[in-house]
Amino acid sequence: MIGPGGTIGIIGGGQLGRMLALAAAPLGLKAHIFDPHERPCAADVAAAFTRAAFDDVAALERFAAACDVVTYEFENLPVAPLATIAHKLRPGPESLRIAQDRAAEKAFVEDAGGHPAAWRQVDNPDDLAAAIDALGLPLVLKTRRDGYDGKGQAWVRDPADGPEALAALGHRPLVAEQAIAFDAEFSVVLARGADGDVAFFDSPRNVHEDGILRRSLLPAGPAIDSHVPEARRQAAAIAERLGHIGVLTVEFFACADGPLVNEIAPRVHNSGHWTIEGARTSQFEQHVRAICGWPLGSPDRTADTIELENLIGDEIERWPMLAAEAGAHLHVYDKGDARPGRKMGHVTRLR
Amino acid sequence: MIGPGGTIGIIGGGQLGRMLALAAAPLGLKAHIFDPHERPCAADVAAAFTRAAFDDVAALERFAAACDVVTYEFENLPVAPLATIAHKLRPGPESLRIAQDRAAEKAFVEDAGGHPAAWRQVDNPDDLAAAIDALGLPLVLKTRRDGYDGKGQAWVRDPADGPEALAALGHRPLVAEQAIAFDAEFSVVLARGADGDVAFFDSPRNVHEDGILRRSLLPAGPAIDSHVPEARRQAAAIAERLGHIGVLTVEFFACADGPLVNEIAPRVHNSGHWTIEGARTSQFEQHVRAICGWPLGSPDRTADTIELENLIGDEIERWPMLAAEAGAHLHVYDKGDARPGRKMGHVTRLR
Repeated sequence: MIGPGGTIGIIGGGQLGRMLALAAAPLGLKAHIFDPHERPCAADVAAAFTRAAFDDVAALERFAAACDVVTYEFENLPVAPLATIAHKLRPGPESLRIAQDRAAEKAFVEDAGGHPAAWRQVDNPDDLAAAIDALGLPLVLKTRRDGYDGKGQAWVRDPADGPEALAALGHRPLVAEQAIAFDAEFSVVLARGADGDVAFFDSPRNVHEDGILRRSLLPAGPAIDSHVPEARRQAAAIAERLGHIGVLTVEFFACADGPLVNEIAPRVHNSGHWTIEGARTSQFEQHVRAICGWPLGSPDRTADTIELENLIGDEIERWPMLAAEAGAHLHVYDKGDARPGRKMGHVTRLR
Repeated sequence: MIGPGGTIGIIGGGQLGRMLALAAAPLGLKAHIFDPHERPCAADVAAAFTRAAFDDVAALERFAAACDVVTYEFENLPVAPLATIAHKLRPGPESLRIAQDRAAEKAFVEDAGGHPAAWRQVDNPDDLAAAIDALGLPLVLKTRRDGYDGKGQAWVRDPADGPEALAALGHRPLVAEQAIAFDAEFSVVLARGADGDVAFFDSPRNVHEDGILRRSLLPAGPAIDSHVPEARRQAAAIAERLGHIGVLTVEFFACADGPLVNEIAPRVHNSGHWTIEGARTSQFEQHVRAICGWPLGSPDRTADTIELENLIGDEIERWPMLAAEAGAHLHVYDKGDARPGRKMGHVTRLR
């Protein structure tokens, strides 16, 4: 066990790294942030900050030498430079490798006994034509790498849309996914401890707008709750097969035939931010516990009804009203420039 | 209002400063710690750290210039050097001046309509003889300044004890307090906003051992609860008369004739640590809200039964057991050397 006085390295200094550092501190653990930006918001609450590129192997080695364990707050990191620090990395490089490539992820999920929507790999117009034959229309094309918050996606509703869609996505390696009729979206956020113990947070209903999570709601309602046992089975099987240590998030579609895996995040997740006030142990503390070899905490809910609302772009300017709202827990990430579509904060309401 | 992106200066980098910084961060506020030590534990979670002596006026001025508001985590600070930054100081210098001198404090409390135990100022053996005449025996002598956690106190049970007690306290300026028969000890932790609004946290029963707080318990029980309305009246009157902005703590004895003021702390307080998980708004967030001009948050309790237990000295070595205890929220201050009597952490249990 990594005990009080120890140091957790966090690759990536955004709001997830910030909230991880804030959860590590009460346990007596120091945070060390690694990020290429000048002043990432997580550095403001960390004991140390290394500014370097994610592929700077020498800097990564110095960083890892100064930390007792190293984790990451997002999955779009180059994996190869992490090879020399793999012994300190939790979750391990395999969780990263799978989660950053949609084709590898879907194949892995299937192999683990999980169910993604029907899909095909698409590297060229011929592959797309074959995918249309196999999956039907409409289908959605997604870049294999670097997609987030709905970026890197294009719909194909007619075969004639193909060339435009491939061009819009920059002729990059893609996957095609069958369009699925789903009743709702939800996520399973689990933690897997160093001893293999698994704890699940309650699954909220996730409401997206323009590809970005707007709200997560608990209770999720019967249309989702009936899918949760099977979704947990799939998520735990994925975590187990990855040998994952830490929090793992699996996003699902609730469909007539059962839950379908949308995507995996090998980390704490926006749809788990409600756990800061709404669970006995937050997802951030749970991740810290797992990677430090501590026993997992209780994931039990602290309120009957919970609403997480994201503050996106200039919505952050609502902060004075939210600060005055009874029962609202305001979180501002202090990221500076409130660009459109940028997650600037969130608010959690318990009832 | 000091909004997200703003900086709170905190004079003193111990666990109270650390927990203030941790509460400021979710509101988007940066913390800047001012402390003479090499690496105070609050600096590990702060955006900036100035290492300088508390009476270094030039350093204080530079520090205040870099902050939007300045607060303090303990009251035994030299007041005179703060004169040039008084315009940024919340609570103001008057709260400090009163709280750091037991004689000034008691006179102020009486003036505000509060009730301390009967007391006399004692500067020499003649004063002590007069105090014994007026107050009877036994009585307790306390240094006017720099006492905390039971330090700087001596009992006089017989007139012959006088010379030894005065010598043990270094012939410093003292107060003599009448021994009082009390049923229990409790505290009123309140916050007063910049607009004069006041919010009270529930009052726990405080259990001391060897002059150090061991436990705070909620509910406090009828022997204390019956005193709380009058104690709140006194505490609010003190806060009002001080023009106090921020959290103010008043410790009380529950006596047959009503609550008697023991002492004032112009700050967040150990007996309020339970609010981190046990109240809708913690005392730390509440203090940050007040000094930044935000509306106060709800002080409502989140659980029926709450126990705060301090981890003192080498008790911190119990952390692995506490980390595994269901429902226990562990807080480790990461202060390094676990000297006897040093507050190293705490644990909060909600039921």
